[in-house]
Amino acid sequence: EEEEERVLVSEHMWRPCPTARRRLRVCLEWVKRQLFHVGEDWYFLFILGVLMATISFMMDHLVSRVYAAHRWLYQEIGDIGVLKYLSWTLYPTALATFSSGFSQSITPHSSGSGIPELKTILMGVVLEDYLAIQNFGAKVVGLTCTLMCGSSVFLGKVGPYVHLSAMAAAYLGKMRTSVTREYENKFKQREMLVAAQAVGVATVFGAPISGVLFSIEVMSPHFAVRDYWRGFFAATCGAFMLHLLAVFNKTIVALFKIDLKIDFPFDLLETFFFVILGVVCGLVACAYLFCQRWMMVAVRRNWLTAKLLATDKPVYTALVVLLLSSITFPPGLGQLMASRLTMKEYLTSLFDNHTWGVRAPNASWAAEPGGLWQEWDHPSATIFGTLAFFLVMKFWMLIVATTLPLPAGYFMPIFIYGAAIGRLVGEVVALLFPRGLHPQGPPRPIIPAGYALAG
Amino acid sequence: EEEEERVLVSEHMWRPCPTARRRLRVCLEWVKRQLFHVGEDWYFLFILGVLMATISFMMDHLVSRVYAAHRWLYQEIGDIGVLKYLSWTLYPTALATFSSGFSQSITPHSSGSGIPELKTILMGVVLEDYLAIQNFGAKVVGLTCTLMCGSSVFLGKVGPYVHLSAMAAAYLGKMRTSVTREYENKFKQREMLVAAQAVGVATVFGAPISGVLFSIEVMSPHFAVRDYWRGFFAATCGAFMLHLLAVFNKTIVALFKIDLKIDFPFDLLETFFFVILGVVCGLVACAYLFCQRWMMVAVRRNWLTAKLLATDKPVYTALVVLLLSSITFPPGLGQLMASRLTMKEYLTSLFDNHTWGVRAPNASWAAEPGGLWQEWDHPSATIFGTLAFFLVMKFWMLIVATTLPLPAGYFMPIFIYGAAIGRLVGEVVALLFPRGLHPQGPPRPIIPAGYALAG
Repeated sequence: EEEEERVLVSEHMWRPCPTARRRLRVCLEWVKRQLFHVGEDWYFLFILGVLMATISFMMDHLVSRVYAAHRWLYQEIGDIGVLKYLSWTLYPTALATFSSGFSQSITPHSSGSGIPELKTILMGVVLEDYLAIQNFGAKVVGLTCTLMCGSSVFLGKVGPYVHLSAMAAAYLGKMRTSVTREYENKFKQREMLVAAQAVGVATVFGAPISGVLFSIEVMSPHFAVRDYWRGFFAATCGAFMLHLLAVFNKTIVALFKIDLKIDFPFDLLETFFFVILGVVCGLVACAYLFCQRWMMVAVRRNWLTAKLLATDKPVYTALVVLLLSSITFPPGLGQLMASRLTMKEYLTSLFDNHTWGVRAPNASWAAEPGGLWQEWDHPSATIFGTLAFFLVMKFWMLIVATTLPLPAGYFMPIFIYGAAIGRLVGEVVALLFPRGLHPQGPPRPIIPAGYALAG
Repeated sequence: EEEEERVLVSEHMWRPCPTARRRLRVCLEWVKRQLFHVGEDWYFLFILGVLMATISFMMDHLVSRVYAAHRWLYQEIGDIGVLKYLSWTLYPTALATFSSGFSQSITPHSSGSGIPELKTILMGVVLEDYLAIQNFGAKVVGLTCTLMCGSSVFLGKVGPYVHLSAMAAAYLGKMRTSVTREYENKFKQREMLVAAQAVGVATVFGAPISGVLFSIEVMSPHFAVRDYWRGFFAATCGAFMLHLLAVFNKTIVALFKIDLKIDFPFDLLETFFFVILGVVCGLVACAYLFCQRWMMVAVRRNWLTAKLLATDKPVYTALVVLLLSSITFPPGLGQLMASRLTMKEYLTSLFDNHTWGVRAPNASWAAEPGGLWQEWDHPSATIFGTLAFFLVMKFWMLIVATTLPLPAGYFMPIFIYGAAIGRLVGEVVALLFPRGLHPQGPPRPIIPAGYALAG
């Protein structure tokens, strides 16, 4: 009433007589109805995108702060081996144990990535509890702690974040039905869920198109094109918000910056090596899936691990993370697998534009500070040794990590693993053909970063 | 039998006794059955991709040769105005008239882009004749001639090429049923058609992902994810073949090369101008659709054009193309719309990394040879005048061109038009803020090529 009054007062030319007032009220009512009728979905998609981007950004920010604190602690603690070891291993162990204990105590649905269950829901099976908003807090806290463990535990963010996004979408959908006083609509719920998947990926990577492709590829056997536009809209809102927050925080950078410059964009002979890379990656992926399945069964069959997983999940988590972080201890085996890098630094270093095999022997390059790739350069093992050792060790370490009962994603580790395979293949090719594949003519060196990207 | 014999002879260790022979035959039969059972679709998708890429490459090659001949003729004919005018206008008129007459005489289905009809077929309506292989030749020849007309007629290749790809897919599908002796399968036909759309776009632009996105976005309201993989496979084969042919022909370049380097990837204030650009493009698109619909009706209502279109399509084509090419005559109005550029050169010049508004007044830059953008720089109109004139003229010229009864696509002209809008907005912004949007700090100049890309 007051609002209306003010509107009328501001329009001096228009006397507030009863008829006009009634007309105005009808008009406002009509506008409200139109806004809700035409675009209610779009508002909720917008809210979903903005909300998930904000949470994602805050999680990233917190994780990087805590990780920096860990690094500082590890550096400042001095040269006493035992203290260094304890500071390296206990930090992730405590975080992972808390993650496992906290999230499991609230809800058992919060462990793992959540992607398989989401697929099941999209196929039409009703798993109401799985999208309950109560899980949201448990999964956010658990996932943040998992990410804080860093590259020792070697787990990612995408899968659980898609699950989080789906929970938020389900909650927003319930809010909408209470606002618009409609009955719940299964089709609208499904639409929101599909859009939520796109938002989940888009707000982790800041890449709306990848988000939409993910929601097409991974999620369901059939795809309605009206979901496509919704997904694009929500994912774009989310990605935009993520960039916006980064601007306000003055930390804007390309998330995974790649600076490849190739004058000659397509070399036919090199395609052969890319085919080999594809075959290698395919074989490793098959082996990984086989071993991972075997491991899952073995963990349930073994009486000790089965008992721990049934009753004392945090203890199991603590033991496994202690093992994993002991292996990555930098003065020990860790120096052979560049374990001081974070997950993001792994990717950044593997996409480095320089050919490590050329740079490593050159002392003047090696003395240059600040290159992340130097973590990979071990004096006696060379970069080939560290890359191969990284691949061998992380293969079983990742499989062990996937048995942990805490919220964690498995996309990011697989991306890094693939990039490492690609880098290794690329470095070997660059070593074999230092002047490129054409001995005549100007040298066109092989660029291992391209292989890492393909991997 | 002979083949089998040779296999046996080549294996010296293995005596050809009757049992072994029978076993070998059974084995070969089994392999053949397996190959056909597991992957028959994939073979046909592979063939489809390779075939369409080859045709696309040959068309492009032929078009560029004929276009070069036209340019040579126009330059060599001397300074006599009438001859220059005739060589400029008669060449496209003759080609377009032939295109219209030839394709219409074979089949009336070959005109236009074919996208609406394909959508209808994918919705489930049976239009058998529309995918008959007899149309293929008519449409290939007609489309090639249309493209040879160049930028005077201002028409593209994508739409008809998608139609061609669908025809090839339908024919291959028929071949498959005759090879495998199965009954025709509606589902398999549909799958091939969806993959064909992805191949059509991928083999024009050499971009498989765009092809698949096109097949999702444009083609049907529902999308099966198994079509997605098929589309990706076929489109990748096609795009790879296209690059391969370019390598053999030593003409490999990035099709639309963009060289944008921005240190600061995201400027919040600049987003405002991108929003304005989006609004402008949306409004122009609405106006275009409205006018185009009006034009289509008007052409059918007017007794002269209706009579010509009903009985003398080539005459109508000749008259319209004569009008269009007279307007683009370079010494006349053409100099205000950079009409000497081809379609591809239009895009390349609009994506140019330099800010024209800065370069144009600078005499030393202007004297530098070889820049395509100099076509846009008119001594008295300046680049803003030419861009605005281009937009105004091409708006109605494109609408007139869409009424032509010949095989032609409308995507490429729209892309160029959008890029020109973006370029104009970008150049205006760069003129208003020569040091970038932040007066303090180091200058971060506006890059109009980014606006052109967004447009």
